[in-house]
Amino acid sequence: MKIIVVGASGTLGKAIVNELGARHDIIPVGRSSGDYQVDMTDFASVKSLFDRVGPVDAVVSAAGGAHFGLLADATPEQMFVGLKDKLMGQVNLVLAGQHKLNDGGSFTLISGVLTYNPIVYGSNLSMVNGALEAFARAAAIELPRGLRINVVSPTVLQESMEGYGPYFRGFEAVPAARAALAYSRSVEGRETGKVYSVL
Amino acid sequence: MKIIVVGASGTLGKAIVNELGARHDIIPVGRSSGDYQVDMTDFASVKSLFDRVGPVDAVVSAAGGAHFGLLADATPEQMFVGLKDKLMGQVNLVLAGQHKLNDGGSFTLISGVLTYNPIVYGSNLSMVNGALEAFARAAAIELPRGLRINVVSPTVLQESMEGYGPYFRGFEAVPAARAALAYSRSVEGRETGKVYSVL
Repeated sequence: MKIIVVGASGTLGKAIVNELGARHDIIPVGRSSGDYQVDMTDFASVKSLFDRVGPVDAVVSAAGGAHFGLLADATPEQMFVGLKDKLMGQVNLVLAGQHKLNDGGSFTLISGVLTYNPIVYGSNLSMVNGALEAFARAAAIELPRGLRINVVSPTVLQESMEGYGPYFRGFEAVPAARAALAYSRSVEGRETGKVYSVL
Repeated sequence: MKIIVVGASGTLGKAIVNELGARHDIIPVGRSSGDYQVDMTDFASVKSLFDRVGPVDAVVSAAGGAHFGLLADATPEQMFVGLKDKLMGQVNLVLAGQHKLNDGGSFTLISGVLTYNPIVYGSNLSMVNGALEAFARAAAIELPRGLRINVVSPTVLQESMEGYGPYFRGFEAVPAARAALAYSRSVEGRETGKVYSVL
């Protein structure tokens, strides 16, 4: 399969490239790195990515930012950071890609443990993750031509614990390589509308 | 208790006023009806609502629009309709209200059955509902002064079946009065971070 990996240079992206690259043709994509560049928050840029890359069988994403801060201080503008980036950035991949992927192709997006297991500072990420999981369940029943969509929801990664550890006290971290397995399950399996939790 | 009901003139809003009005002081609020007017999508308007009404013990919402249409035709702008209105409109009530509600007060927001049970045309609503439920779980652990937050997730209402029936074939509709009971449970109970499904 020919697979676009958005966020290929990140901690999780590298593990996905390592897992899927053993059997497939990987096209690494990033905001400023990779073989192709994309600004996911700009729909024209996302559409242009599919035009530039040509037909592919899967799009997997390990990308997307959100606001991280106390609810007490939160402004609507801060909440829109995650809605525009991690949520609509990934939704843009689906809105554009549904018309471009090869028959039977798949989308695999990333949410995270905060959908059901909140932490202080995480309300924007929880909101965004919940939206992505529900969107995938809805998109799964409308996508044409056998296209599929799933979401990978990893807990905090072992490789990220140096930075994020203080916010995730008591959470069992998982290696990025384990989260990457869930991407393989989504891309190489046949399920759709699923959320693969990696806990 | 003194309770703001946003969307008080709607089908569900009327049932909520009927249920809670028997025991509490209701302040009906709407975009253009009610004792006070608010544009939930405008944070300044929401902050002004709390200043105008003064101290309250609960804010309940049965308001918020979203885009309804095929995924195949969907644009990012259409997806932002629900994100700005039903999602951030209700989140704005919390961001502003957390500093204004009386100690021990509560927020009760509305999502809907599409979070986990998608229908064709409903991807924007599914996304928005999933975001609201996850946001409430996250906000619940950060709200100060004993403030609480829950979400009511009703299936399609019997009173709305004439308009929405064709999109909800096979769904068992519930009377608005049953959905209103869940608002009572949220406001008059002590739980927080819960999603009350009314199916």
